[in-house]
Amino acid sequence: MWQGQWIDLTHEFSTRAIYWPTAKAFEHTEVFKGVTDKGFFYASYDFAASEHGGTHLDAPIHFSEGQLGAGDIPLQQLIGPGVRIEVMIGAQRNHQISVEEITRWEQEHGQIPDSSIVLFDTGSAALWPDKERYMGTAERGEAAVAKLAFPGIHPDAALFLIQQRNVKAVGIDTPSLDYGGSVYFHTHQILFQQNIPGFENVADLSALPPTGFGVIALPMKIKHGSGAPLRIIALIPPTD
Amino acid sequence: MWQGQWIDLTHEFSTRAIYWPTAKAFEHTEVFKGVTDKGFFYASYDFAASEHGGTHLDAPIHFSEGQLGAGDIPLQQLIGPGVRIEVMIGAQRNHQISVEEITRWEQEHGQIPDSSIVLFDTGSAALWPDKERYMGTAERGEAAVAKLAFPGIHPDAALFLIQQRNVKAVGIDTPSLDYGGSVYFHTHQILFQQNIPGFENVADLSALPPTGFGVIALPMKIKHGSGAPLRIIALIPPTD
Repeated sequence: MWQGQWIDLTHEFSTRAIYWPTAKAFEHTEVFKGVTDKGFFYASYDFAASEHGGTHLDAPIHFSEGQLGAGDIPLQQLIGPGVRIEVMIGAQRNHQISVEEITRWEQEHGQIPDSSIVLFDTGSAALWPDKERYMGTAERGEAAVAKLAFPGIHPDAALFLIQQRNVKAVGIDTPSLDYGGSVYFHTHQILFQQNIPGFENVADLSALPPTGFGVIALPMKIKHGSGAPLRIIALIPPTD
Repeated sequence: MWQGQWIDLTHEFSTRAIYWPTAKAFEHTEVFKGVTDKGFFYASYDFAASEHGGTHLDAPIHFSEGQLGAGDIPLQQLIGPGVRIEVMIGAQRNHQISVEEITRWEQEHGQIPDSSIVLFDTGSAALWPDKERYMGTAERGEAAVAKLAFPGIHPDAALFLIQQRNVKAVGIDTPSLDYGGSVYFHTHQILFQQNIPGFENVADLSALPPTGFGVIALPMKIKHGSGAPLRIIALIPPTD
């Protein structure tokens, strides 16, 4: 069962994990670490964070009222054939991935199969956890939002993936489905109105082929969650 | 890819999720929910909890110094062929699952395959989230620990699973690998000394066959975590 190579596409949660400048960053608090009065070793921690940071799920309810929460997304929508679309980002980090970039990829690798999970590889995972290089600023707070700069998915490309390619879910190796300069988050709105979940801050995708692998993306099952920490992995089947 | 039926073996995280009487329970805090000043709907939450509550991983470092933390466990140890061992618990909730119960199961279903993930079904998931019925007490705090009562795995059975059956991981549908009355947590110690992770508060296992299914257990990737929220799922392949 499950022959092949498993690849972890998840950044570690630690105090270095990257969060939106206005979001509560990950905290890991020691409750106990050491030998107890009964003579055995014991370690335990509490943790706290925004739902939106590190490698995480964006649930449709995040931007679309009445849509699915993190705990409600069917497993069938989180598991499926994967597609990796490599996108070349130049010096202009605030790039929006276009329909043309997707169709150009398809000319080389074939049409995105129906019900795929599409992962955009902008090479940004290599910049993690350097906040300034990864998302344009290491500052925190509301004023830092205007300094964000990183690639995202153009709203037209999101529409194309839903309407023309019937994708199950969309992921990207940057902090957000929308690009750093976004104000209205149209890509989020478009995807979530159709209950298509998003995966953000996905880790290094470079080991994946363009097609022919499977994705399993399992979020923490937070009831009514607008998002959740995500463990996302891929299986590359053995070559014959 | 992945034909068959996916089954979620995970309880939802909410304020009703069950935690150890002394552990920080799950908190879900609204940051924003409603229409923003830019005219679109937006919802976001923070969350906080102990690593040990709800359906969760116990990492080897929880009871064994220097062993694997939650983020370090290889995927290969969290993914594999599953075995469901149903155990009949009588009125005495503080039952310890014995070697004999395992070998009796094997007489009917065959020897546990090498490198299996063994899940014990005590029927306790049906009692969730009623704390008093599920674990013997709904009280919180240190004094409540003496009132805990629920089934666990006898240390001899843990040794047997490691030494005689070479298991990858062990799960149970109760709050702890050790039974409610445990003081020294020997089963935890035995498993974790060998870097065998544990899955606790696993949800309803009754839809699984005794053997012939796969398990994928993906914890939140907490660096140096003593445990982590776990999303655990199973795949039952199609019958021919």
